[in-house]
Amino acid sequence: MLIGTASAAAATTVGGTGAAAAADKPAGSAAAEPPKFDLDKGNFYTDLIGKSGDTTGQHQALDPQNVSVIIWIQDMLQAAWFDALAPYHPTAVGVFSRIERRPAEEGATNRNKNIAALHASYQVIKPVYPDRADVMRQLLTMVGLDPDDDSTDPTTAVGIGNIAGKAALRARRRDGMNFLGDEGGAYHGQPYDDYTGYEPVNTSYKLVNPSKWQPLASPHRRRVGGGPGDKGIFIDQRFSTPQLRLVKAHSYKDPAEFELARPEHLDHTNVNKYKSAVDEVLAASAKLTDEQKVKTEFFDNTYLGILQSTKAAGLAHDLDLDGWIHLLFTSSVAQLDSLIAAWHHKHEDNAVRPASAIRHVYGDRKVSAWGGPGKGTVDDIPADQWGSYLPAGDRPEYPCGTTTLVAAQAQAVRRLLGDDVLEWKQPFPAGSTQTEPGVTPAKDIELHYATWSAFEKDCAASRVWAGVHFKKTAETSLEFGRQFGDRAYEFVQRHIKGDVKK
Amino acid sequence: MLIGTASAAAATTVGGTGAAAAADKPAGSAAAEPPKFDLDKGNFYTDLIGKSGDTTGQHQALDPQNVSVIIWIQDMLQAAWFDALAPYHPTAVGVFSRIERRPAEEGATNRNKNIAALHASYQVIKPVYPDRADVMRQLLTMVGLDPDDDSTDPTTAVGIGNIAGKAALRARRRDGMNFLGDEGGAYHGQPYDDYTGYEPVNTSYKLVNPSKWQPLASPHRRRVGGGPGDKGIFIDQRFSTPQLRLVKAHSYKDPAEFELARPEHLDHTNVNKYKSAVDEVLAASAKLTDEQKVKTEFFDNTYLGILQSTKAAGLAHDLDLDGWIHLLFTSSVAQLDSLIAAWHHKHEDNAVRPASAIRHVYGDRKVSAWGGPGKGTVDDIPADQWGSYLPAGDRPEYPCGTTTLVAAQAQAVRRLLGDDVLEWKQPFPAGSTQTEPGVTPAKDIELHYATWSAFEKDCAASRVWAGVHFKKTAETSLEFGRQFGDRAYEFVQRHIKGDVKK
Repeated sequence: MLIGTASAAAATTVGGTGAAAAADKPAGSAAAEPPKFDLDKGNFYTDLIGKSGDTTGQHQALDPQNVSVIIWIQDMLQAAWFDALAPYHPTAVGVFSRIERRPAEEGATNRNKNIAALHASYQVIKPVYPDRADVMRQLLTMVGLDPDDDSTDPTTAVGIGNIAGKAALRARRRDGMNFLGDEGGAYHGQPYDDYTGYEPVNTSYKLVNPSKWQPLASPHRRRVGGGPGDKGIFIDQRFSTPQLRLVKAHSYKDPAEFELARPEHLDHTNVNKYKSAVDEVLAASAKLTDEQKVKTEFFDNTYLGILQSTKAAGLAHDLDLDGWIHLLFTSSVAQLDSLIAAWHHKHEDNAVRPASAIRHVYGDRKVSAWGGPGKGTVDDIPADQWGSYLPAGDRPEYPCGTTTLVAAQAQAVRRLLGDDVLEWKQPFPAGSTQTEPGVTPAKDIELHYATWSAFEKDCAASRVWAGVHFKKTAETSLEFGRQFGDRAYEFVQRHIKGDVKK
Repeated sequence: MLIGTASAAAATTVGGTGAAAAADKPAGSAAAEPPKFDLDKGNFYTDLIGKSGDTTGQHQALDPQNVSVIIWIQDMLQAAWFDALAPYHPTAVGVFSRIERRPAEEGATNRNKNIAALHASYQVIKPVYPDRADVMRQLLTMVGLDPDDDSTDPTTAVGIGNIAGKAALRARRRDGMNFLGDEGGAYHGQPYDDYTGYEPVNTSYKLVNPSKWQPLASPHRRRVGGGPGDKGIFIDQRFSTPQLRLVKAHSYKDPAEFELARPEHLDHTNVNKYKSAVDEVLAASAKLTDEQKVKTEFFDNTYLGILQSTKAAGLAHDLDLDGWIHLLFTSSVAQLDSLIAAWHHKHEDNAVRPASAIRHVYGDRKVSAWGGPGKGTVDDIPADQWGSYLPAGDRPEYPCGTTTLVAAQAQAVRRLLGDDVLEWKQPFPAGSTQTEPGVTPAKDIELHYATWSAFEKDCAASRVWAGVHFKKTAETSLEFGRQFGDRAYEFVQRHIKGDVKK
């Protein structure tokens, strides 16, 4: 079947790796002849869902910094894809569903795999990301599928897709993430709200313990550069999804088994070490370059730096549809499992962010630092007015979640594809940053990452440039994350080979 | 000059009493013949700025509960209007500008008054509410004015308007509200942010002193029924504009001169009184009717219940353009001055909201109450899961700001117009509430307020129905507010009669 899908391709969903379209709806037929989608030869991911127009995330209901929820949803979707394709693979078995293997000829072309994966997608998106359900419906309709076909016949592609999607949802809806919002009680609950009773040691008003996390005050428009919210309203942070540490990982039972050195650099009783950690952040802030500013936003935006990188690696290699889905799921397992472990330690160490530590060390003494949007470096900013280039995430500092998961992802993809090749080029037009729109970068910049090694190194460094992490934290997180890449690779390989318990 | 303005009329700004259009831009020429605006005979307020399509406030940058900032901006705008018309009045003198009186023939028609007021509006809106500046530009252009005409010639209507607008801005930009955002320091400041160092006694996690305000946790989408914000993100409240207490009032020097009884009903050491106050709120919650739910949203929405009521009173009387502007400014002075005094006491008493007090008294014991959107009254809700029908404002409880200012406004308008007539009918279609969309009210409801007395009484009661104020607080606020209506009336009358110091 050949159907024009240019506009549908731009209308993708959060779960698609890197998919974040600005348009709320497919635009309908364009003036130019749209490209065709061929169910037999096409790839629902690279040709449809993964083909994203907008990767800014500015129009998403989940803000680009909300890495825990985004990765949690992505994993559910990509597990559903893996499971939907498994019955058509010679040896693979699903993670959340064990659908009987189909005759080889049914998997001879991509047709049944595409159909199954698209139905699986809709089963997940409909309840989990309702903001995008209409777009997904229209995408299915455009390629000739009926989104309301609820069949669970395990001998048809539609049924297999629906089974796989529903199984992923069933496995995750009570997995600890509080997706239903009722883990804390039957009344007035909210999806993704904490129910574990986390309470910070400090308030935004008073730093009682300078080693521990202090929720920061911010405008209600809290995203990088602003975002949706109420003008003139100010808020205090709350730890975002502390319950992620309790979520069921794919590749291990208990995140406590992964040791992480205590953050001695944040022990305020060791005055010199603590001050050194602070000074490294201040030094970075004082000499921020345009390229560094671009990179901070690139890596901080989950929809771009995190979700698009696996896709870039896929495009740099020659993969068939199964290869793509195995790549995406391997990467996704690495991300989710590493993030759960990172959250375990974030909760346990409950560590202070740079803004609080800088104020603790220097009080109202003047320091040299970035002075705010468009102000460049100034040498007279009182330390208690210091601001990071990006808003700090609403969770404790140690380890760095972003660096941990990028390190895990990099290692997982290296293991799967057998090399370090990333070969990703990402252009940033002059003035395209969110923090300093119209100003930074002064000239067009193109980032080019030839390897995952270069990519993960810059990711770690960018968290310090952004002023949201300490140098030692970023370095440690890089080490910490890798092991989850190895585990993810091995976990998915076992499922591809069918080497798992029945 | 006759110019079609149907679409411009729908594109009004926050400062216009009750003006809150959904459209971001005038829609341009419509299919049907648009009504004309006659500069000589028309009224820029009733025919243009005050003609509002949407009064939900859902599309405004300032949320409908942000009463302090909305009223502060409104007052600046309406002071500018008063000053812009004063030179054309036989005796009036401006509040922020003293422009020489014009010959009587220049005020013979509304032409010069309309021109001056529209230019004054643009001078205020441009810097103060830039989100709406484009709309205001287009409105001026449509009636044949040049928004870029920056003349300050005190012998022309354009110049008089510009002088009046700029004078209001000059008077208010450093009046204590922190409109420029730099009162707390030169770096990383935010407009309307607190710079007075307010710090709550309690945290959202722990009620240390059950008589004092506890910032509440909420979803980032904090408006009634949701609103713009980030899904899956949770926040703690911060006291919204505690600095309003320091803002310069029109009709008095120091808000401390207005005594208000201490809130003994919230003294938790008086166990019985405190419990009675709590029980009154619970009783109201348990027997909420559809009409009460509608009224809570009606009065909570500053753009509707507060800003539209003065307009309704004006429409119920026969006023010329001067009469309208005197009415609006009298009402505005009553609102701002009463709110400053209310904020003084909010800050001083720093009183607890019902949700915290209910939890303090009943812990996790089951109570009867509204159970959440669409759930009606339930009898098994643990008190620590209780939720108010509307989100409580982000400021201490005592006195009630909304009731105080409505009482002031009612009294001011009564004094000016010489009677209690309001005669306002406001329809609410079935299912049109924000909290229970599609559900409440079950049938169409039309509110009808024949008098200000009935209106202010329901306003006070609605704050208890909403679960955001105690009964005793609402009653006391009604008494407290009235005196500011008298003062506002007398203040504006002195300026109309020219009975003020040169």
